[in-house]
Amino acid sequence: MISKNQIKLLRALGQKKQRKAHGLFLVQGEKNVLELCNSQLVVKTVFATSEFLQANGQALQNFDCVEASLDDLTKASTLVSNNAAIAVVEIPTVATPVAQGLMIALDGVSDPGNLGTIIRVADWYGIKHIIASTDCADPYNPKTISATMGSFGRVFVSQLDLPSYLEQAQIPVYGAFLEGESTHQKAFSSEGILLMGSESHGVREAAAKFVTDKVTIPAFGQAESLNVAMATGIILDNIRRQHSN
Amino acid sequence: MISKNQIKLLRALGQKKQRKAHGLFLVQGEKNVLELCNSQLVVKTVFATSEFLQANGQALQNFDCVEASLDDLTKASTLVSNNAAIAVVEIPTVATPVAQGLMIALDGVSDPGNLGTIIRVADWYGIKHIIASTDCADPYNPKTISATMGSFGRVFVSQLDLPSYLEQAQIPVYGAFLEGESTHQKAFSSEGILLMGSESHGVREAAAKFVTDKVTIPAFGQAESLNVAMATGIILDNIRRQHSN
Repeated sequence: MISKNQIKLLRALGQKKQRKAHGLFLVQGEKNVLELCNSQLVVKTVFATSEFLQANGQALQNFDCVEASLDDLTKASTLVSNNAAIAVVEIPTVATPVAQGLMIALDGVSDPGNLGTIIRVADWYGIKHIIASTDCADPYNPKTISATMGSFGRVFVSQLDLPSYLEQAQIPVYGAFLEGESTHQKAFSSEGILLMGSESHGVREAAAKFVTDKVTIPAFGQAESLNVAMATGIILDNIRRQHSN
Repeated sequence: MISKNQIKLLRALGQKKQRKAHGLFLVQGEKNVLELCNSQLVVKTVFATSEFLQANGQALQNFDCVEASLDDLTKASTLVSNNAAIAVVEIPTVATPVAQGLMIALDGVSDPGNLGTIIRVADWYGIKHIIASTDCADPYNPKTISATMGSFGRVFVSQLDLPSYLEQAQIPVYGAFLEGESTHQKAFSSEGILLMGSESHGVREAAAKFVTDKVTIPAFGQAESLNVAMATGIILDNIRRQHSN
């Protein structure tokens, strides 16, 4: 059974300030909780229904598990559905990655759902690190984690001073701009940072000045723009078709 | 001022049954309402704040406009924000399109946000018609319209008996399957129907049997799948790079 204090903690972890204070975040939903078994993340406690615990006993054997009713889990959850399991997990310490290989940098992408979808598509294309400006959405927001569909365990997001990072990078910085070179024509390097801005402001000047190559997805119709996660996925596909490692 | 009956109508149009009964749907938010000026859709009434009406008087001159407070608009709206303008629009009669050019077909894509994002990316790639199984999300759901970011006026969705439609099509049917041929290798025809299934069930057998070519987006990492809207966008990009008309 979940104690009142545990419910209080789960609810508190819906807030960024509390996640930071506790050094903990929530992983919710069956699929996401099971992904923890394959990750290096440190799991403090798994709260789950007896059905979930029975069905996944072996996978969960190294975790501290607490059985709870679906009602209690739903009360404690920040999500409206899919609450058969909620894990409390330590926020990992992520060392700032060296700029190498193919990476993504995000400038002011503030929607947690978009960030989660970008983490998922980054995982599809084998990218391990995302660099994010400090005003991007919190990578440990429950909505971000939920949208990653399990990829949160394989792709790490470092929030840092983005312009400084880009300034020091020794690899190309491909910035997405409406007036860039067509991604269908562009010869991409095997290493590079794909820099995406927010849908409302694009890449801001402070980061834009370190862009070495402006690129754009060719349009064939009349839509003014694409969703930032969608654009990220399409450009990654354009790069990976040239460089599969 | 919005009358009580008008508020009642606006609220009712949040429901599919009511939209069907009235033959009307809602377009909400400043950007989407302004897109109506460039579309062939028949606008019954625009409810908007005095600021919005003043700023856009010329664009809206052919519409029947009713001034309303932001409070009243928010009460009437199905959205939580961005309520400076709400339009009531006639659901157009869309003739079943002939299978020609590049088209999208959706099998059981039930999330309105995904459908809206697919409409937006279809518009980016110059696609005019989407064929959808009858159990797909309603194209006139306010969440669908909102996610299209204005593209609802340029891309039409026909809900119909999908397997029958595919059976009669005289052009290739490219179905997205995890075991398909790589979209990076595939030679696409200039005409074809891109068939996408739902994330949970994929393309179902009734539609799958009319697929002429199975295709897949090559994966470079460990994510199990991509969001259906994301996958649609990436495959469209792979097709359009070969055939730009």
